[in-house]
Amino acid sequence: MKKRHVVKFYEERRRLNEIVMKYSSDRIKKFYSLDAHVFQKGVLSRKTKELMGLVASLVLRCDECITYHIMQSYDNNVTTEELEEALSIALIVGGSITIPHIRKVFAQWDGLQRKEKI
Amino acid sequence: MKKRHVVKFYEERRRLNEIVMKYSSDRIKKFYSLDAHVFQKGVLSRKTKELMGLVASLVLRCDECITYHIMQSYDNNVTTEELEEALSIALIVGGSITIPHIRKVFAQWDGLQRKEKI
Amino acid sequence: MKKRHVVKFYEERRRLNEIVMKYSSDRIKKFYSLDAHVFQKGVLSRKTKELMGLVASLVLRCDECITYHIMQSYDNNVTTEELEEALSIALIVGGSITIPHIRKVFAQWDGLQRKEKI
Amino acid sequence: MKKRHVVKFYEERRRLNEIVMKYSSDRIKKFYSLDAHVFQKGVLSRKTKELMGLVASLVLRCDECITYHIMQSYDNNVTTEELEEALSIALIVGGSITIPHIRKVFAQWDGLQRKEKI
Amino acid sequence: MKKRHVVKFYEERRRLNEIVMKYSSDRIKKFYSLDAHVFQKGVLSRKTKELMGLVASLVLRCDECITYHIMQSYDNNVTTEELEEALSIALIVGGSITIPHIRKVFAQWDGLQRKEKI
Amino acid sequence: MKKRHVVKFYEERRRLNEIVMKYSSDRIKKFYSLDAHVFQKGVLSRKTKELMGLVASLVLRCDECITYHIMQSYDNNVTTEELEEALSIALIVGGSITIPHIRKVFAQWDGLQRKEKI
Repeated sequence: MKKRHVVKFYEERRRLNEIVMKYSSDRIKKFYSLDAHVFQKGVLSRKTKELMGLVASLVLRCDECITYHIMQSYDNNVTTEELEEALSIALIVGGSITIPHIRKVFAQWDGLQRKEKI
Repeated sequence: MKKRHVVKFYEERRRLNEIVMKYSSDRIKKFYSLDAHVFQKGVLSRKTKELMGLVASLVLRCDECITYHIMQSYDNNVTTEELEEALSIALIVGGSITIPHIRKVFAQWDGLQRKEKI
Repeated sequence: MKKRHVVKFYEERRRLNEIVMKYSSDRIKKFYSLDAHVFQKGVLSRKTKELMGLVASLVLRCDECITYHIMQSYDNNVTTEELEEALSIALIVGGSITIPHIRKVFAQWDGLQRKEKI
Repeated sequence: MKKRHVVKFYEERRRLNEIVMKYSSDRIKKFYSLDAHVFQKGVLSRKTKELMGLVASLVLRCDECITYHIMQSYDNNVTTEELEEALSIALIVGGSITIPHIRKVFAQWDGLQRKEKI
Repeated sequence: MKKRHVVKFYEERRRLNEIVMKYSSDRIKKFYSLDAHVFQKGVLSRKTKELMGLVASLVLRCDECITYHIMQSYDNNVTTEELEEALSIALIVGGSITIPHIRKVFAQWDGLQRKEKI
Repeated sequence: MKKRHVVKFYEERRRLNEIVMKYSSDRIKKFYSLDAHVFQKGVLSRKTKELMGLVASLVLRCDECITYHIMQSYDNNVTTEELEEALSIALIVGGSITIPHIRKVFAQWDGLQRKEKI
């Protein structure tokens, strides 16, 4: 994922979340806030929690959730080795139907690693 | 969703269904007919049935099914409050992996509400 | 479902929830409270919400969730016709893998209808 | 699976289906009839269709569907080698979460092979 | 699917798999190799195995897996009648949420049948 | 989970795996071996990997997988706080349909904590 893809992803996410908030009652708002809460640092590190979120998103095959956790994993200093071990678990547990998503994960990771400009 | 998106969605759906019918035996045709049948008005209203179809599509995360039920919900006079309550149930039952779909639902609803031309 | 089955189901549920609460932080507690919240009467009736919860549980094939919504549907005066229409939607959307659950739903409904003692 | 388990399984299935039919409209009845229809011999053999039903049930992890297709596979002269190849596909596609079901499949197959009395 | 779509699909797949291999340990590599292994001709024919892979991918709703098995089915001389019978099983087992995928399958099959140039 | 439940669980698992091995080719055997491989200590600790396996099993709602990872988590010195944080993530990501499984997790954990005899 190139830098401009990261920026674009977050911008689109923000734009859509604003529309959600415009129409939502406190029920959906409370869910959003709880969602943010469970990923905060606790006895488990931010890094471990992001990798757990990634594994869960992968076995449930939610592309947008996966992309988000990849970017958060990158920002929380997950190493390639750690990522690969987490993906191996998701692949074995979830089976070959996770492969199209695993391809996208590594392609995004590759872009982030190569720190491409723009 | 703008008017032209609605028109385009239905046109593409029709085009693809014609290809399905070209290759299908009576088995697939009967399924299509049964599918239409269960959503017809009964002791439950069309509106309630569309919202049920929406909740089912959301927790199973089928984007094209969701878009269809959103458009049908709009045509059957579902209010924003009713939609939001149905989405809250889907979100709690199905979890945060439904959020990317809920974002699209509200973005489409927003377009339909604003009755954008073309 | 006979009366003693209903009593036993709620008792076991309460016993287990007490264990959950014993070990849970406010994260899980908030989720429980939000879960109760979304099913409260709003612009949609309790009855409609229970039927939506039932449809969602059926397509996701969660037996304990299904049993709970069946009992709540019964307590909220859902009629057999309404139940059958909701189940038809779940069956078409979710496919034949929902049939083992639909069998249990009607068996439980049958017991509740016949108001069996003990 | 011993002979008496097979008999018991079919009896319980029949008993529950009778309750379903008692409460069902033609919608659910038509689905049942379509379900039987798609598994009838066509250009694909009964055997191939049962193995396809088994693979689908396994990756969706529906225990009662799996048991039914195992018994039907046995009655349609599926060999152990054919069964094993079909299960390998389901295991790779669906991942390790299918293993608990694959264990039950082979345990049932083992019982059927050994043609245990009673 | 037109010829150029087939070529493009395989090329993109190869490009992404190379990135996966660049970052993968022997764990993910072994999974890839096992994945290829289970679809090789055995007591079940290549054709039957591809149709099983297609049914599994359809009920799990993995678009990229579906496209791959459609192209492999075409290359292994699956007939339209065989395809349609396999799809009927997937549709009944997996329900109407498979319909958007079944539409794409027949649209791709239609393209392959018409052997469109470039 | 009482001590005798743990012993019984592992014994039944071993008995069934022996039946699987009796009927399996090297395909299924290789999958089993790969499954064991990905959970071995690497750059991620055994503890972290078990918690990831637990989160994946929870969102996919595989009761036998969950029980196995709970017992392995216990043996790898997972604390109640770590368990609760991992479960919170699974609950938010997977939704209320994971609650019946979360109830069982804490009931088993409670038994293991209280180190009940026999």
